[in-house]
Amino acid sequence: MDAPDVRLVAVGTALPGPPVDNAALAKRFGVDEIWEQWVDAFIGTRQRHFSVDLDSGEVRYRLADLGRIAAERAFATAGLSPGDVDLVVMGTSSPDQLMPATVNVIADQLGINGVPSFQLQSGCTGAFQALDVAHQMLSTGRHRTALVLGGDVCTKHLDLTLDPKDLTPAELVPGVMFGDGAGAALLSTEPRAGAPTIRRILVRLTGLDREPGHVVDWYGPADHHASGPATSEDYKAIEESVPTMAAEILGELQDELDWPDLDYLLPPQLSGRMTARIVESLGVPGAREISCVTSTGNTGNALPFFQFEQLLARMAPHDRALGIAVESSKWIKGGIALEMTA
Amino acid sequence: MDAPDVRLVAVGTALPGPPVDNAALAKRFGVDEIWEQWVDAFIGTRQRHFSVDLDSGEVRYRLADLGRIAAERAFATAGLSPGDVDLVVMGTSSPDQLMPATVNVIADQLGINGVPSFQLQSGCTGAFQALDVAHQMLSTGRHRTALVLGGDVCTKHLDLTLDPKDLTPAELVPGVMFGDGAGAALLSTEPRAGAPTIRRILVRLTGLDREPGHVVDWYGPADHHASGPATSEDYKAIEESVPTMAAEILGELQDELDWPDLDYLLPPQLSGRMTARIVESLGVPGAREISCVTSTGNTGNALPFFQFEQLLARMAPHDRALGIAVESSKWIKGGIALEMTA
Repeated sequence: MDAPDVRLVAVGTALPGPPVDNAALAKRFGVDEIWEQWVDAFIGTRQRHFSVDLDSGEVRYRLADLGRIAAERAFATAGLSPGDVDLVVMGTSSPDQLMPATVNVIADQLGINGVPSFQLQSGCTGAFQALDVAHQMLSTGRHRTALVLGGDVCTKHLDLTLDPKDLTPAELVPGVMFGDGAGAALLSTEPRAGAPTIRRILVRLTGLDREPGHVVDWYGPADHHASGPATSEDYKAIEESVPTMAAEILGELQDELDWPDLDYLLPPQLSGRMTARIVESLGVPGAREISCVTSTGNTGNALPFFQFEQLLARMAPHDRALGIAVESSKWIKGGIALEMTA
Repeated sequence: MDAPDVRLVAVGTALPGPPVDNAALAKRFGVDEIWEQWVDAFIGTRQRHFSVDLDSGEVRYRLADLGRIAAERAFATAGLSPGDVDLVVMGTSSPDQLMPATVNVIADQLGINGVPSFQLQSGCTGAFQALDVAHQMLSTGRHRTALVLGGDVCTKHLDLTLDPKDLTPAELVPGVMFGDGAGAALLSTEPRAGAPTIRRILVRLTGLDREPGHVVDWYGPADHHASGPATSEDYKAIEESVPTMAAEILGELQDELDWPDLDYLLPPQLSGRMTARIVESLGVPGAREISCVTSTGNTGNALPFFQFEQLLARMAPHDRALGIAVESSKWIKGGIALEMTA
């Protein structure tokens, strides 16, 4: 028996609170207009959403809340209900707690029970990793309908008690580049009109002998009075590596699938500026770009779901789309190929 | 084409430092002999290993170190090398960092590259969840040889600066019940003498409308000066639920596989005392029990690998073994069925 085709049936997304633009961020951080212009010019991300209120510090959404809302929207779009799901897979770098895993809190809130659930500890390729796990488990025939989630929140990483004037511009960058959000997708082996088929998911660790480009620590009771930065990024390594890795992913998928022509390209979404540079360097004539980072910020594990949401609204019969993501912590290549069958 | 059989080829484990017995623990915590006797009688765990030196507080092993050592031992036993691996899956509740995922640090140390890697955020069923992901991915034929890892370390949770006299007996229990360790297994679709076939892996969320029995928080820079316990356990709920859930898992696997008789039983390893009670209540006459918790403590995601290691050394042709695990944070059932083909 051939493995069944797996279709991307519906997508839902969730962003917390109102958008925070660069002017509002500059005001909150007490930095000047020149900084704001620098962000516009060199980062190119116009706005993002935060699960914490920047003024009061109040946490308004947990990752579980955003994941549940995104899932509910996907169910509504698909006309499916949580009872239809026989598998749940989630990717995040910022779980609400270490235990229970956030995926299980979301499952409980949705009323999903009695099925396998998995939560990946993942970065910017996490959505593709979670989709890959679900895709493989649907391919074996053990499951028929999977809920795949991805999301990240900065609530534990954004220390609002610090005086921004004590921070270097580099230390301010995460608040500018990243944003909070969650996404959900429903995957099914049942044929369904308007649902593209997943032709290939690529997930490949490429970290051998390379220093991490992005490090995020956590504290427990034994070291929670430790000082020093918990997060560090090697922007130079990221700027150098990501365009090259993106080109390799694109080339490999196009060769393997024999897809010389693409209808849609979903490029990596690091920042508005870097995404524009990557798209330019990839040079895929004729492919329409689907990006969202300028208005959402880099939402990590959530990001591809925002692209999928736009893609599903636009894809026509026979359209082909490739998505690309790169995880810079220990360097992972991620790719996905979607095709709308007639 | 039928899905290929997946075999458990070899297992390796790693424990940090020398064993710490209850007398040494009582001495370190400044508690008396009666407490030590209470631990012996009611917990029934004789010793455990810690990745941190209890006297100096020095962290001697990270989770990545233990995982790498366990993997090296599995490779040596199997006569395989990291270059043979085309998939890596790990389960842990206590990653060294949020990013990079520890699985990728271990892969780097072993020289594994260019393959998919996944790290699950998981508790006491984590080994089975990681095995399930690998098993499914091997079943589709996309992969041939998987390295599956599981491990946990307490280094961030065990605050040695606290005066144990300020802690309640309940607060001392984690140090008594839990231990650090890691395990690794090599799974393959190639036929191999002496390697049992994985007949079934069961992973099932059963948390609907149930409070978590075990909560573990983490801190980031924004809340790392927070006070209050980061870990809490509902021992009463665990004591009540785990034996019942274990019986349900056993019954389901035996019914589904039509295995009325078992040669080996690998019961949940919460503590020496609780494991003994569960085995008694399960009542599986003729099945030899494989347990390790009295000498390792509850090593979380590592624990089933210690049981598998003993099992592989003992299994004879046609032997059948069932392993059972229960995750108490949001209540997950885990089970595995292994059969030695002739």
